Amino acid sequence: MKDMNEIINYCKQYGFIFPGSEIYGGLSNSFDYGTLGRELKNNIKEAWTKKFINEEINNYSLDSAIIMNPEVWVASGHVASFADPLIDCKSCKSRHRADKLIEDFTKGEETGDGWSNEKLEAYIKENNIVCPKCGKSDFTPIRKFNLLFETHIGVTEDAKSKAYLRGETAQGIFVNFVNVQRSMRAKVPFGIGQIGKAFRNEITPGNFIFRTREFEQMELEFFCKPGTDLEWFEYYKNQCLNFLYNTIGLSKENLRYRDHAKEELAFYSKATTDIEYKFPMGFGELWGIADRTDYDLSVHMNHSGEDLRYLDPETNEKYLPYVIEPSVGVDRLLLATLCESLTTEKLENEDRLILKIKPYLAPYKIAVLPLIKKVHADKAVEVYKELSKSFVCTYDETANIGKRYRREDAIGTPWCITVDDETLNNNTVTIRDRDTMEQVTLKLDEVKDYIAKKLEY
Amino acid sequence: MKDMNEIINYCKQYGFIFPGSEIYGGLSNSFDYGTLGRELKNNIKEAWTKKFINEEINNYSLDSAIIMNPEVWVASGHVASFADPLIDCKSCKSRHRADKLIEDFTKGEETGDGWSNEKLEAYIKENNIVCPKCGKSDFTPIRKFNLLFETHIGVTEDAKSKAYLRGETAQGIFVNFVNVQRSMRAKVPFGIGQIGKAFRNEITPGNFIFRTREFEQMELEFFCKPGTDLEWFEYYKNQCLNFLYNTIGLSKENLRYRDHAKEELAFYSKATTDIEYKFPMGFGELWGIADRTDYDLSVHMNHSGEDLRYLDPETNEKYLPYVIEPSVGVDRLLLATLCESLTTEKLENEDRLILKIKPYLAPYKIAVLPLIKKVHADKAVEVYKELSKSFVCTYDETANIGKRYRREDAIGTPWCITVDDETLNNNTVTIRDRDTMEQVTLKLDEVKDYIAKKLEY
Repeated sequence: MKDMNEIINYCKQYGFIFPGSEIYGGLSNSFDYGTLGRELKNNIKEAWTKKFINEEINNYSLDSAIIMNPEVWVASGHVASFADPLIDCKSCKSRHRADKLIEDFTKGEETGDGWSNEKLEAYIKENNIVCPKCGKSDFTPIRKFNLLFETHIGVTEDAKSKAYLRGETAQGIFVNFVNVQRSMRAKVPFGIGQIGKAFRNEITPGNFIFRTREFEQMELEFFCKPGTDLEWFEYYKNQCLNFLYNTIGLSKENLRYRDHAKEELAFYSKATTDIEYKFPMGFGELWGIADRTDYDLSVHMNHSGEDLRYLDPETNEKYLPYVIEPSVGVDRLLLATLCESLTTEKLENEDRLILKIKPYLAPYKIAVLPLIKKVHADKAVEVYKELSKSFVCTYDETANIGKRYRREDAIGTPWCITVDDETLNNNTVTIRDRDTMEQVTLKLDEVKDYIAKKLEY
Repeated sequence: MKDMNEIINYCKQYGFIFPGSEIYGGLSNSFDYGTLGRELKNNIKEAWTKKFINEEINNYSLDSAIIMNPEVWVASGHVASFADPLIDCKSCKSRHRADKLIEDFTKGEETGDGWSNEKLEAYIKENNIVCPKCGKSDFTPIRKFNLLFETHIGVTEDAKSKAYLRGETAQGIFVNFVNVQRSMRAKVPFGIGQIGKAFRNEITPGNFIFRTREFEQMELEFFCKPGTDLEWFEYYKNQCLNFLYNTIGLSKENLRYRDHAKEELAFYSKATTDIEYKFPMGFGELWGIADRTDYDLSVHMNHSGEDLRYLDPETNEKYLPYVIEPSVGVDRLLLATLCESLTTEKLENEDRLILKIKPYLAPYKIAVLPLIKKVHADKAVEVYKELSKSFVCTYDETANIGKRYRREDAIGTPWCITVDDETLNNNTVTIRDRDTMEQVTLKLDEVKDYIAKKLEY
């Protein structure tokens, strides 16, 4: 696996990911997705939608607003307690997350998750944990720092118009539970999933796109009858891991489950498991799967005064469903995909940089390449125009064909279609495979079906 | 065309669009997209991407961050002057946009666009324009109200950490101009397009999803050589109108160009045209196409100190390209699509509600319906599982088949596949067409190609 700096440089050079607002010196660990990053991200989102919404007969999609009524975040507990333990080094004035200091100090053996301020402070003192920046151990007391971004809606800047950028997409699902259930006439068990931006004012964002303040989530809330919840929890644990293996193509040795210990669980949760991926900087959380019981629906029912219970049409029973929540960050998943797939292959005479991703995830499916620009460009543009109706394609007429193949290998394009004299004379093209580098010759009107077939999953 | 209330009720009932955070009493004209709205919106975004990015050999995609370095908005002029003229009625305390008062009063003949405060105030006085709420004419002076949403990044709430939610996606493109051009080795003329959320603290949002504070844009910035700009302006004027006619299916009589008069143009713009659509409340702006010259790149070049000029590889000339910007709101386009497509058809014995949209825009492509639940459900689920690998499908086993057809008509599903005894015995299904209501019988293994063919565009 490449190291993080190689990944970052690769992303910038090839147009996957740029530092955010770079011409203005950036903005604290924010990033913009270039063309290839945008396409890859889009393909990952489509794969999730396919597997977790479309192919699941009982699952439904949603797209709720980023700015919601602030009472949503009061009810959910985010306003009161969605906070990180902030600690300052008195000596060098650098700012840290107290739990992260402990996690780094113990090399991940203690996470500090869910510890009280007192416990965190005591642990830091007892173990003489020092400031990673200046090496001294002279910290302020811990303050809780709320992670919700605040803004104001409307013309007056009073408390009433205060609003938050959503800290997670999940709450949009809970508040729309009844609307979706009724309009889709959904029957428990069923799921509602959505993809979208979320915002957390992290104290210490970092590790490239692993932890950023603005990020994208793919969350499914699966509503089921109490008592069946642990079965569904197992089901989704498996589905998520299968998705990572089979659909995204991460390797088994880089993935592991981390079941949360009892004392680590939120008070309302019956079970929580993280799927962790071995990034260049070590194992990190990729996907959280939690049995959240009826906690979310019940707090919203209490706080809003609306009846959110489900009426079982067979038993006439009214109840709040339990919910299983698999929640994954798109940016993290994209990072894992790149880390897993970017490799340098030794060939006889040279090294070949290759992004070995599943063809359906590749930013471009096809590169159309005229063998000689002056002779074959017109025909190649024609081929591009035809194929781009069905696939995301790229066109390249610069440099020699070998160099162009290498560039397409490096960005993961599974097939290069070369337009040459045979195309002009016989309407055939050669299709080169990224991984085997083998070429087949096809009639132009066979190309679409040939590629479409290979893109099925 | 249905009136707006019918559209709003339809959207809620069938799961297209719900009032935002509804269980908490909503949030000032904000909305959440339900399953069908999310799917329709997604299909509209895909259609735009197909036509304006993929099929255009020189156009590239981007996905930049919502929160950018605040200097971006200083340079662009948004911090200083992205403001609406706010006026209060002293009598009833209601709040208005001064230009909108004039536009409503003159029934759109004067837009007040670009007028100074003094001119607006004088016009209101001279014409005795009254408060639409209380009928009096007793207004405060006009104040400029900035539309950018503010927030703060990081731990300290000082001026330095102030940031804005982007007021448009376009600026993300301008600041990434060099990054995209270099990484994609793009040659002028080329375009960069992106889809994403933008936020404007509108004084008077309204007309359902026509004007909301949180909305989604699809913007293309097409960079070309100065002198060729008016040609490209014409090209994109045509492309946008063609897209609305041919791809979205809006009718010609509901669309019109509105060329901006000289005095209405921004000082840097050589030409601007709006494409307006005839919504139930009257003509409203759908798509703005503007020749912005090199204004945007030059302000960012000056403010950032970075050289944003393009080096022409053939002439070795260095210059700032001119830019043509076609900019359209996704929500508005979705509203236009619904207004255009939702119709009630008179049949012999009943009325039929039908969403007559292009099949590739339909939320569900296929509804799989077992004729008799007890007998055909298992097979129908099997059919659903197979087809949902290729298409977004729905499954319905409730009520009689006629009612289920009507429901699918109402949400625009182009094909209903009925699973009956013939399916069990001969592996054939009947496929019913939404518009003609005609049925054909096909072998199960022919269905996929049959539908895929019909979805090409």
